[in-house]
Amino acid sequence: MSTVTAAKRLIPLLDRVLVEKIVPPTRTAGGILLPETTAKLNSGTVIEVGAGLKNKEGKLIPLDVKKGDTVLLPDYGGSHIKLEGREYVLYRHDDLLGILEE
Amino acid sequence: MSTVTAAKRLIPLLDRVLVEKIVPPTRTAGGILLPETTAKLNSGTVIEVGAGLKNKEGKLIPLDVKKGDTVLLPDYGGSHIKLEGREYVLYRHDDLLGILEE
Amino acid sequence: MSTVTAAKRLIPLLDRVLVEKIVPPTRTAGGILLPETTAKLNSGTVIEVGAGLKNKEGKLIPLDVKKGDTVLLPDYGGSHIKLEGREYVLYRHDDLLGILEE
Amino acid sequence: MSTVTAAKRLIPLLDRVLVEKIVPPTRTAGGILLPETTAKLNSGTVIEVGAGLKNKEGKLIPLDVKKGDTVLLPDYGGSHIKLEGREYVLYRHDDLLGILEE
Amino acid sequence: MSTVTAAKRLIPLLDRVLVEKIVPPTRTAGGILLPETTAKLNSGTVIEVGAGLKNKEGKLIPLDVKKGDTVLLPDYGGSHIKLEGREYVLYRHDDLLGILEE
Amino acid sequence: MSTVTAAKRLIPLLDRVLVEKIVPPTRTAGGILLPETTAKLNSGTVIEVGAGLKNKEGKLIPLDVKKGDTVLLPDYGGSHIKLEGREYVLYRHDDLLGILEE
Amino acid sequence: MSTVTAAKRLIPLLDRVLVEKIVPPTRTAGGILLPETTAKLNSGTVIEVGAGLKNKEGKLIPLDVKKGDTVLLPDYGGSHIKLEGREYVLYRHDDLLGILEE
Repeated sequence: MSTVTAAKRLIPLLDRVLVEKIVPPTRTAGGILLPETTAKLNSGTVIEVGAGLKNKEGKLIPLDVKKGDTVLLPDYGGSHIKLEGREYVLYRHDDLLGILEE
Repeated sequence: MSTVTAAKRLIPLLDRVLVEKIVPPTRTAGGILLPETTAKLNSGTVIEVGAGLKNKEGKLIPLDVKKGDTVLLPDYGGSHIKLEGREYVLYRHDDLLGILEE
Repeated sequence: MSTVTAAKRLIPLLDRVLVEKIVPPTRTAGGILLPETTAKLNSGTVIEVGAGLKNKEGKLIPLDVKKGDTVLLPDYGGSHIKLEGREYVLYRHDDLLGILEE
Repeated sequence: MSTVTAAKRLIPLLDRVLVEKIVPPTRTAGGILLPETTAKLNSGTVIEVGAGLKNKEGKLIPLDVKKGDTVLLPDYGGSHIKLEGREYVLYRHDDLLGILEE
Repeated sequence: MSTVTAAKRLIPLLDRVLVEKIVPPTRTAGGILLPETTAKLNSGTVIEVGAGLKNKEGKLIPLDVKKGDTVLLPDYGGSHIKLEGREYVLYRHDDLLGILEE
Repeated sequence: MSTVTAAKRLIPLLDRVLVEKIVPPTRTAGGILLPETTAKLNSGTVIEVGAGLKNKEGKLIPLDVKKGDTVLLPDYGGSHIKLEGREYVLYRHDDLLGILEE
Repeated sequence: MSTVTAAKRLIPLLDRVLVEKIVPPTRTAGGILLPETTAKLNSGTVIEVGAGLKNKEGKLIPLDVKKGDTVLLPDYGGSHIKLEGREYVLYRHDDLLGILEE
């Protein structure tokens, strides 16, 4: 076995994207409690972005999301990881549905 | 978990298209009630269009639909999303059947 | 939901072809009743043709059929659509078997 | 439904080939009855040949068989069609096994 | 049905290869009876070779075997054909394992 | 059978990567025993890297990891190997999730 | 059936590699009996290497192993062949795990 390590940061490989899930708000901006039935967006913030996939000539094709983007997540899939006590999910670029803007 | 957000707009990723379904008319233009059996077109309006897929050289290949197009939808598939209280469906470009013209 | 619409025309997307089925003749040209057992060709008339698929450079590769062609149809597949009271079927170009000539 | 038609000729689409099956001989050239056990070749004559498939640049790649070729047929597959009272079978080019020479 | 024919030769199409199986020897070169357990090579002689497959530009990519080669055959697959009273087997080029040299 | 050998080193072929698993720490850097429930990262150290895959022109497309990288491993897959008494796992490049940094 | 032959050598076709398995040592170099539990490497010596696969232009892409290499073998797959009384196994290049060095 290799030497012990305490990882602080994960650089996704290839076309993977590291996302931290967003807790859907339970109150409005003004503080009013939202009804349980309010539809909740399955979204997250992009923490790290892989370098992308190489084409046939070895040229890197970058991904379409960047750090800080808020992305709409699929209902399934993703690899769950815990780093420094925080929960993250690793997705393939192709599985991310879209970029959410306020 | 990341900070809370109230998303207003979704920019589809890759070859996805955001569509708002069209309610099939129950009356003719003149107001006459249409019989229940009238065939209903499963259609919707294009709200947002993804940038498209990148080819082997990283060049973007744009999609064949644009905002405002009325499109004929497949009977199955699509990811249902609610934004600002309105219902939308996210389709892959290849799943859309055609563009409807009046 | 978007505003109501009465679609009159469907432009197929990508490699799809809109076809109107041909009713197999029950009588000869001279009016003589054809026996029930006469083999019936599953054919139709091309109403609209999609623009075709884009290749890796984004260049459109047109389809091999055109409006007005009479085509031999596969026994299965196709999406059934009703427009302005008439029945149509949407096929993928690759599923059409051949062009029928008189 | 479109207007009625009496098709006389079928031009196969893409990589399809129209074949008319050959009845295996029951007698030798000299007229002698062949024993039932004589192996029968599943063969046919090429009646019509599709234009072939288009490559990524839209250039047509012609097929390797031509009208009049006698071809060895696979035991399975093919779409059966009746035109002008004669039976034909439509194969994909890739399914044809070989060209038979006398 | 087409006219009757007595095929004498089969030119394989595309990447197919026509092989005549080799009977594994039951005696050594010196005539001594080989024990039943002697491992038997599943081999054959190449009789005819297809032209090969066309690449995206329509250029033929020839196969790696030629008439007269002795080839090692897979245990499964192949289409069995009888021509002029002799048994042959038609293989895809990719299924042939190797070329045997004395 | 070939001559006997005592292998000391394995050079992975194509897009494979040889990894030695890292034992998740049971104590903090200060020596305090970590609770059993502490999430454990499935990680390892890259020992050897394959040359990569060749593209259509035979040009090698190198992999994105190098010797000494600490990588996050998938929960499944990998071929287990023992060399010189030490345990290693061989992964395909595409299966590695990301590079961990302290 | 073709004429009889006594094959002495097999040239693998395409991307295949002919390997002779290595008997895992039961004693150390100094002659001491190794415990039954000693992990055994599934390895072999490369006897013959196929020419490789042709790319779209018909150019041969050579394989990454050569005669005499000691290779680590997958636990499954391979076609078993006996030539001149010796046992060999035929693998696809992509199935070989790596090259073992002393």
